[in-house]
Amino acid sequence: MPTSYNRLAGRSVERLAALSDGIFGVGMTLLVLDLHTPLREAIQGEDDLARALAALLPQFVMYLMSFLTLGIFWVGQQTQLDHLDRSDRHFTWITFGFLLAVTLMPFSTRLLAEFSASRVALIVYWLNIAVLGGMLYAGWKYANRFGLVKAGLPQEVAAAVCWRIVIAQSIYAAGVLLCVVSTRLSIGCIVLVQLYYAIAPRFRPMARA
Amino acid sequence: MPTSYNRLAGRSVERLAALSDGIFGVGMTLLVLDLHTPLREAIQGEDDLARALAALLPQFVMYLMSFLTLGIFWVGQQTQLDHLDRSDRHFTWITFGFLLAVTLMPFSTRLLAEFSASRVALIVYWLNIAVLGGMLYAGWKYANRFGLVKAGLPQEVAAAVCWRIVIAQSIYAAGVLLCVVSTRLSIGCIVLVQLYYAIAPRFRPMARA
Amino acid sequence: MPTSYNRLAGRSVERLAALSDGIFGVGMTLLVLDLHTPLREAIQGEDDLARALAALLPQFVMYLMSFLTLGIFWVGQQTQLDHLDRSDRHFTWITFGFLLAVTLMPFSTRLLAEFSASRVALIVYWLNIAVLGGMLYAGWKYANRFGLVKAGLPQEVAAAVCWRIVIAQSIYAAGVLLCVVSTRLSIGCIVLVQLYYAIAPRFRPMARA
Amino acid sequence: MPTSYNRLAGRSVERLAALSDGIFGVGMTLLVLDLHTPLREAIQGEDDLARALAALLPQFVMYLMSFLTLGIFWVGQQTQLDHLDRSDRHFTWITFGFLLAVTLMPFSTRLLAEFSASRVALIVYWLNIAVLGGMLYAGWKYANRFGLVKAGLPQEVAAAVCWRIVIAQSIYAAGVLLCVVSTRLSIGCIVLVQLYYAIAPRFRPMARA
Repeated sequence: MPTSYNRLAGRSVERLAALSDGIFGVGMTLLVLDLHTPLREAIQGEDDLARALAALLPQFVMYLMSFLTLGIFWVGQQTQLDHLDRSDRHFTWITFGFLLAVTLMPFSTRLLAEFSASRVALIVYWLNIAVLGGMLYAGWKYANRFGLVKAGLPQEVAAAVCWRIVIAQSIYAAGVLLCVVSTRLSIGCIVLVQLYYAIAPRFRPMARA
Repeated sequence: MPTSYNRLAGRSVERLAALSDGIFGVGMTLLVLDLHTPLREAIQGEDDLARALAALLPQFVMYLMSFLTLGIFWVGQQTQLDHLDRSDRHFTWITFGFLLAVTLMPFSTRLLAEFSASRVALIVYWLNIAVLGGMLYAGWKYANRFGLVKAGLPQEVAAAVCWRIVIAQSIYAAGVLLCVVSTRLSIGCIVLVQLYYAIAPRFRPMARA
Repeated sequence: MPTSYNRLAGRSVERLAALSDGIFGVGMTLLVLDLHTPLREAIQGEDDLARALAALLPQFVMYLMSFLTLGIFWVGQQTQLDHLDRSDRHFTWITFGFLLAVTLMPFSTRLLAEFSASRVALIVYWLNIAVLGGMLYAGWKYANRFGLVKAGLPQEVAAAVCWRIVIAQSIYAAGVLLCVVSTRLSIGCIVLVQLYYAIAPRFRPMARA
Repeated sequence: MPTSYNRLAGRSVERLAALSDGIFGVGMTLLVLDLHTPLREAIQGEDDLARALAALLPQFVMYLMSFLTLGIFWVGQQTQLDHLDRSDRHFTWITFGFLLAVTLMPFSTRLLAEFSASRVALIVYWLNIAVLGGMLYAGWKYANRFGLVKAGLPQEVAAAVCWRIVIAQSIYAAGVLLCVVSTRLSIGCIVLVQLYYAIAPRFRPMARA
């Protein structure tokens, strides 16, 4: 009997996407709760306020980083779901693993921002990104193997999605290995990779036009 | 006049699903607010940080458990809505009962994690799961009796969904009964059942392939 | 130029519904943050825990009431949007007024629960419900007058929706007037009306079957 | 290989809209967490409660302002997405910039409400609005240039959307320049513009009818 149920369960790609958007939406706004406005009593004039806001800058950058990372993985997941014809129970649970890592991203980012010289914090952060990438990879492999993708998806598209994840994760791992030299070097490297994935390719088609 | 309104109200399955996804999305990320990064002043070196993170482990496991439970019931509800042709006012209110229990799940899970030796906490947790299951069951029965399901739904599908709930709830109840021996045994049993529902069946189709 | 823009703006019923579901979803889970698990240090045994949970009951009832009210108005709004063919800019802003009142509902409910003997708190709560009803009414009137409803909507349906709001709001107002006798009588009356709208009509079609 | 992936990524307008609705939904309800009910111990009678609620008024107005601003930009974004046939990776990232500014709006509004006499606070608030407007503008320009808009969109519609943003942003900038006279004059001016965009045009079609 359970087998029969399992064949029915979790088939809607739309609802999986809607749940993901809800979780991403909350995750992307959660860290903003940490941005507190300066206390009125502590501020005497414009200079005080400007200085208090400048002191918020590290938290703001941290917020930006978390937003950026979630943005990158949202695009990654959305691209995959876009090519799915249907979901199934097992794909749903792989996605849940992915979404769990999404909700933990604000925590890992905050940890790294607080302890930017610590290898432990860096490894926690990297583990989080590795789980995100690993789940995306597992989901895509599963979807292709068990016929969840839309009919007529060219082989090179399926391969491009996989390659993308493997390359990105390799660069992340290489960046983390740099922490034998310096953790801050690692962080700088990871941020650069993320900015590249978010911004850099945007200029290409514009140049083409 | 009200009768006429009641016949019009709550007919959209899509919006019921969207509301559910919103509530599940918030519920699944709410507990992460409890995961606080260690205070910078309290941390002297890498060892301190590693120990502080290890101390967060019980909270993390609690988070995982809550996420898992909500995931299981999300799949359950999604499977049902997937087979509905339309909703109506009464089905909507049964779903609201279900969603109320969803929003309380983080509370019950936290309670059980805090007081893992307490039968009172265990019973609260079990009541929450029982309401979730009971509402799912009531909703499905109602939908079948009043013609909300899609035309041509085979009888064995309708039965499979019911059986699934009854079996799962029976195992939960049996697990809770074990608390006459030990509450921790009960909790262990419930966690195993949940892991089985989430992970175990995933390997079967892979083996078949 | 702005006129031209205004004719284009806010036309999607689907996105208005999606935004509403997001706001309702957050609003319906927000109050659960107030349900704190008892502190472990304060609890010596099962009796202590049972008593601490019993002490949470008023907060739980308050949560239930807020959930119920939002549920009633969610059904009301969903029923309206369901009959709309398209939206426009002005309907969108009427809906924003409605959604603003939705986000304030947890505040009003908490206020009334804290100060259940106070007429001021009762009037704030009633104002909130009156705005919810008023905005729903205004939205429906506007949609009918400016041709946003689906073609072929029978006149009696349009009238039924209006009547529903007028009757419900009249009963609420009458309930509030009872506060010249006793505020608690008013609250009891309002809760009964809400429970009636949520639960009572469910049994009718079952009896018919 | 990455190029190939980039051509596939971020194509769904629907999911972009859903993520936006999630983020707007959370953002629009976040500030309500600041509205605390008065403490029961501090309140002796009806007068005390009325006074305590009156003291909440500035926070309530601040909440209203933030809600209004987000509402205006939600309508703006929705109108654009409504005319898109598809999205692409770069448009997605422009939207992420927009959504980042959305999540920061509660912070800027609170800052301005706290320090209503400060030019620094006013400039931060204005920067936030300028980024919102700038991203909307960039997104629309990009969508038109790279063929993301629906076929047959009249040239004057595309122009009307651009003009709308340019005019609104010019008025905002002019309002901010008034701070050389007085910051409170600037704020008053901005609030009036926002109220105009939200409410004023609603009466026109009614008058026409």
